Amino acid sequence: MSKLLDEIRLCCEEVDKFIFKLLEPDKDVPILYESSIHLFKAGGKRVRPFLTMKSCEAVGGDPSASIPIASAIEILHTFTLIHDDIMDESNLRRGVPTVHTVWGVPQAITSGDYLFAKVFQAVCRPEVVGRIGYDRAVRIVDMIAKAMIDIAKGQTLDLILQSRIDASEGEYLEMIRLKTARLFQISAEIGAVLGGCSCEELEALSNYGLKAGLAFQIVDDILGLVGSEEELGKPVGSDLREGKKTIIVIYGLRRLPTRSKSLVTRVLGRRDASDEDVRKAIDALTRYGCVDYAKNMALRFRDEAIASLSKLKPSRSRESLEELARLFVDRRL
Amino acid sequence: MSKLLDEIRLCCEEVDKFIFKLLEPDKDVPILYESSIHLFKAGGKRVRPFLTMKSCEAVGGDPSASIPIASAIEILHTFTLIHDDIMDESNLRRGVPTVHTVWGVPQAITSGDYLFAKVFQAVCRPEVVGRIGYDRAVRIVDMIAKAMIDIAKGQTLDLILQSRIDASEGEYLEMIRLKTARLFQISAEIGAVLGGCSCEELEALSNYGLKAGLAFQIVDDILGLVGSEEELGKPVGSDLREGKKTIIVIYGLRRLPTRSKSLVTRVLGRRDASDEDVRKAIDALTRYGCVDYAKNMALRFRDEAIASLSKLKPSRSRESLEELARLFVDRRL
Repeated sequence: MSKLLDEIRLCCEEVDKFIFKLLEPDKDVPILYESSIHLFKAGGKRVRPFLTMKSCEAVGGDPSASIPIASAIEILHTFTLIHDDIMDESNLRRGVPTVHTVWGVPQAITSGDYLFAKVFQAVCRPEVVGRIGYDRAVRIVDMIAKAMIDIAKGQTLDLILQSRIDASEGEYLEMIRLKTARLFQISAEIGAVLGGCSCEELEALSNYGLKAGLAFQIVDDILGLVGSEEELGKPVGSDLREGKKTIIVIYGLRRLPTRSKSLVTRVLGRRDASDEDVRKAIDALTRYGCVDYAKNMALRFRDEAIASLSKLKPSRSRESLEELARLFVDRRL
Repeated sequence: MSKLLDEIRLCCEEVDKFIFKLLEPDKDVPILYESSIHLFKAGGKRVRPFLTMKSCEAVGGDPSASIPIASAIEILHTFTLIHDDIMDESNLRRGVPTVHTVWGVPQAITSGDYLFAKVFQAVCRPEVVGRIGYDRAVRIVDMIAKAMIDIAKGQTLDLILQSRIDASEGEYLEMIRLKTARLFQISAEIGAVLGGCSCEELEALSNYGLKAGLAFQIVDDILGLVGSEEELGKPVGSDLREGKKTIIVIYGLRRLPTRSKSLVTRVLGRRDASDEDVRKAIDALTRYGCVDYAKNMALRFRDEAIASLSKLKPSRSRESLEELARLFVDRRL
């Protein structure tokens, strides 16, 4: 596992080099630059670009050719984080104040829009198009646009579910598929396309990305309850306070005995809930197996992701992808 | 002029047909559809798509081939309106409540992001790429992305100038060039590219779009003060209350006698300013020639725009573009 972390770090360095070159300082509007680069500087593992590069390599492509597009995907991800933090009124991300907390909501909206435009500018750079060809550049622009359309749908579902108490497991899964897993899915798909994949390889990597992404989000939701603020880079239990319908909450609202359930409903969607009450709600969800239920679901998706990879030729990069899916579930972060 | 309005209406119908097809209802997330289509339904002249179609025709192209891309530009414009209204805390647009007023800020941010993604999806549709070719599709994606990057810079400058009392005319012009005129400029440029223009034609139409766009924004700023709420579709003087540094205000802050100037500073950036005080400030700005100064500036840009067109071969569509620049300055709206 530590070898995988080294690999990810190496990929992260190359991706960051490209991102910091693309987002060059602009002396006329330094605020736009500083607010846009803020979350990149604050950390993040760059797992999506890693997924793109390894998928490219796993089908026989040169992973270094995929760096600009892998970076574009990370920029897309960061743009969605900036806008998400405004919507969720989150103050902390990666251990630093969120963009709108530092520069205000209007600038944070603008910085997100700017990064979204940069995604497409990255794909259309002459040296990138020269290498991948016009037809593949158009295909990738289309894939990214469609994924973003799905992310917006997932975001809308997330907002809808927040205001409902009767959200179902199926609705949760559809929401995280759109909002989170789709980006993992196209990260893998785009890597495969850039590597010159066959149809079968594309399907295998697409399914891998989707399932690994579902596992990732479920574990994210678990860590949001049982992690520490230091590890998370944001307050524990903020999902509860924001009224997020995670699988843990959905399962809890159906299975908890009345008294324990009331511990959860008392803090759900209450931004002013006390730390003590939030802790009690988390204890109840843990004690009655809601966290274990979610963990088992994540493990199933992880296994499905890994099973998908069996359709690829054995290779070092296929092994990395297997380990990545394991990391998604085993991580403390 | 009434013939021009008929032409614009016709173009508007074709563009809207494409837009309403592209933004099809989604039964799973009807809110996303309704909130995204809201401003299209509320009106708007579609002058930017008209500019694209006429620019295409003016260099000898088939304007109907440019409809999908012209529509994409209108979608981009609408996305920026949705996000702008959040930033400006505007409640009314085109005579209807703004998107965030009806569906809340989080949904309005999401709907804007969704429309931005739709812009690129429109360009990459197989029937579009089949007609314009992969290379031109990539070129157009790049042009749109770069224009959006400039719009974000302009938006940032707008936010910065709002908090400053010493904004200069040069800073104002740079801000509206980026925030407004750039989109007019690429509307013309993209039409030219789609029509198979020469370098000289591209330069002429690019300059035309830029100058016409500057004239458009200056007149918009004037109408925001001297129009009626019914014509504007939003409250008179809201720019003053938001602290916007329009050319009228910048000129006023330098040229007004002390007592009249205090009438302006009393309402500038004060959202709670009374209608009476706003009216007094507007009277002062009008009486001391600030509105006329702006009007003359708009007329100069209009003339420069029209002069640019002399480099194109005479044609009916060139005449339409000339009339369009006149409409931008003479319009009541």
